[in-house]
Amino acid sequence: MARVCVAGAGVIGSLFAAHLARVADVSALTRREEHAASLRERGLRVSGRADFTVSLDAATDPDALPEPDLVIAACKGTDLESLAARLERHWPGALVMTVQNGIGADGVVARHGDWRILAAVTFMSGTRHDDTHVRYVLDTATWIGPGRDTTVDDAEWAAELLRSSGLKAEAFPDLRPAQWSKLIFNATVNTVAALTGLPHDLHFAALDEPNDLGHLVKGLMDEGKAVAAAAGVELGEDPWEMNVLATQRGSAHYPSMLEDVEAHRRTEIDMITGALVREARRFGVPVPLHETMERLIKAKEDSWS
Amino acid sequence: MARVCVAGAGVIGSLFAAHLARVADVSALTRREEHAASLRERGLRVSGRADFTVSLDAATDPDALPEPDLVIAACKGTDLESLAARLERHWPGALVMTVQNGIGADGVVARHGDWRILAAVTFMSGTRHDDTHVRYVLDTATWIGPGRDTTVDDAEWAAELLRSSGLKAEAFPDLRPAQWSKLIFNATVNTVAALTGLPHDLHFAALDEPNDLGHLVKGLMDEGKAVAAAAGVELGEDPWEMNVLATQRGSAHYPSMLEDVEAHRRTEIDMITGALVREARRFGVPVPLHETMERLIKAKEDSWS
Repeated sequence: MARVCVAGAGVIGSLFAAHLARVADVSALTRREEHAASLRERGLRVSGRADFTVSLDAATDPDALPEPDLVIAACKGTDLESLAARLERHWPGALVMTVQNGIGADGVVARHGDWRILAAVTFMSGTRHDDTHVRYVLDTATWIGPGRDTTVDDAEWAAELLRSSGLKAEAFPDLRPAQWSKLIFNATVNTVAALTGLPHDLHFAALDEPNDLGHLVKGLMDEGKAVAAAAGVELGEDPWEMNVLATQRGSAHYPSMLEDVEAHRRTEIDMITGALVREARRFGVPVPLHETMERLIKAKEDSWS
Repeated sequence: MARVCVAGAGVIGSLFAAHLARVADVSALTRREEHAASLRERGLRVSGRADFTVSLDAATDPDALPEPDLVIAACKGTDLESLAARLERHWPGALVMTVQNGIGADGVVARHGDWRILAAVTFMSGTRHDDTHVRYVLDTATWIGPGRDTTVDDAEWAAELLRSSGLKAEAFPDLRPAQWSKLIFNATVNTVAALTGLPHDLHFAALDEPNDLGHLVKGLMDEGKAVAAAAGVELGEDPWEMNVLATQRGSAHYPSMLEDVEAHRRTEIDMITGALVREARRFGVPVPLHETMERLIKAKEDSWS
């Protein structure tokens, strides 16, 4: 039985851990001791799309956990640097898989150890109920590609493991087309939602009147596509089509940056829009709309700090 | 003694009415009967930059007030259409002076009657304490220019009346340079404040880092200047210099659009950024940043309505 450590047991980490615990030997590395204790005592419950409870091991110190075959680094992008630092000099034989938004997460992990690395991007979503209960909302896929010292076969092994646990997953020889599609989608939808207070609803696809929000969404996505083209990346899904499809679903998704802003937390702007703007500058592509969104979100963070 | 009716007794209207009541026969036209009754019974108090209380007449029906020489239409831009409709067929001999943000307020009034019109722009500010008490915060000037059927002499007469009451005022042969400077300043500062939650503080002039907010402020003002140039208007004060000076003052001003957004009220976006964007389209000047701000603010209004 494969041994998996899910590092970071927020919403996404909890969804991975709970599902995988049904087919693998799963442990969770948490930040708070109270969180680890609750998981050890009460297990982890999933509701929503699925409904089950599993038991699993949990700790705040890697030394207290068995050496895993696969580490899923499932924390938020803002916490990845400190998580990777905590993993330094542990588990040299493990595969480490990153699932953070944006691009560059695998590079952050690589600076902290010689692990073999898989780069993933996940489209599933949920909401946190409490430390041991997560609601599974969107059962969309996790896409996995090779990173440092790994091949598409390693990606396929991890994808198959996720599928066997009941999650959707797919391996790709090159993850960049998917990563960039998601980056452009996220940089647009998260910042627009965070600034307007709107969930990802039909406003985002409206193009009837000149003032309609869809024009801004399209403009941001067009800038993103120009950066991808300059970087030599052929996009996977078209971000605008992803946007139109998502807004036609029944219930509007509440983007995480909107949640962050409403809770007066630091957002993931540096990892998302920041990553896109850095790539744009590197390739000399003008992105005035994304720069505008980045400046507005950073100023908004300053307004409460 | 000149007879003045201040139509709309919000912050700006109250500041005009209270000061003028010391040198003129002043009445206030209010929307709420309760407000008019309070003013008749308790008078109107100014604190802050000045401290005094005056008595004055007040009513919700123009027929209940004496015919004035000068009507100051001091309501918000969003209420001007309905205020002008209430004045229809009243006081044909009066001069009507508009003081709304943006451009085009005199045109709104002109559609409702044959009054002679003065166009003004005011830089003073205050905060509302209650129906009969307003705090005078910035004692900056009101600038007055000729409108329909008036000359600079009429503007000078009104400016002198304001000065004699203790307010700052200046008459100009053409108000457009001042109006456009203020329009560009307001379209920028109000929308940026409303979206970020920041009062008009030092962030607005910061240009050190690429992500600093000053770059967006400057970009918005540069777009505005290009529209003014295309419209053949030579600006009065430079909006960027106004911005830098204002942010260097001790206490950061709280722009009205930020107040509106926090109270979940409709904003004046149509009168301010909307006016600038309409002029830009008329003259074929691209204003992608102002369009972005307009779409974000309108979507934000939709988020609570």
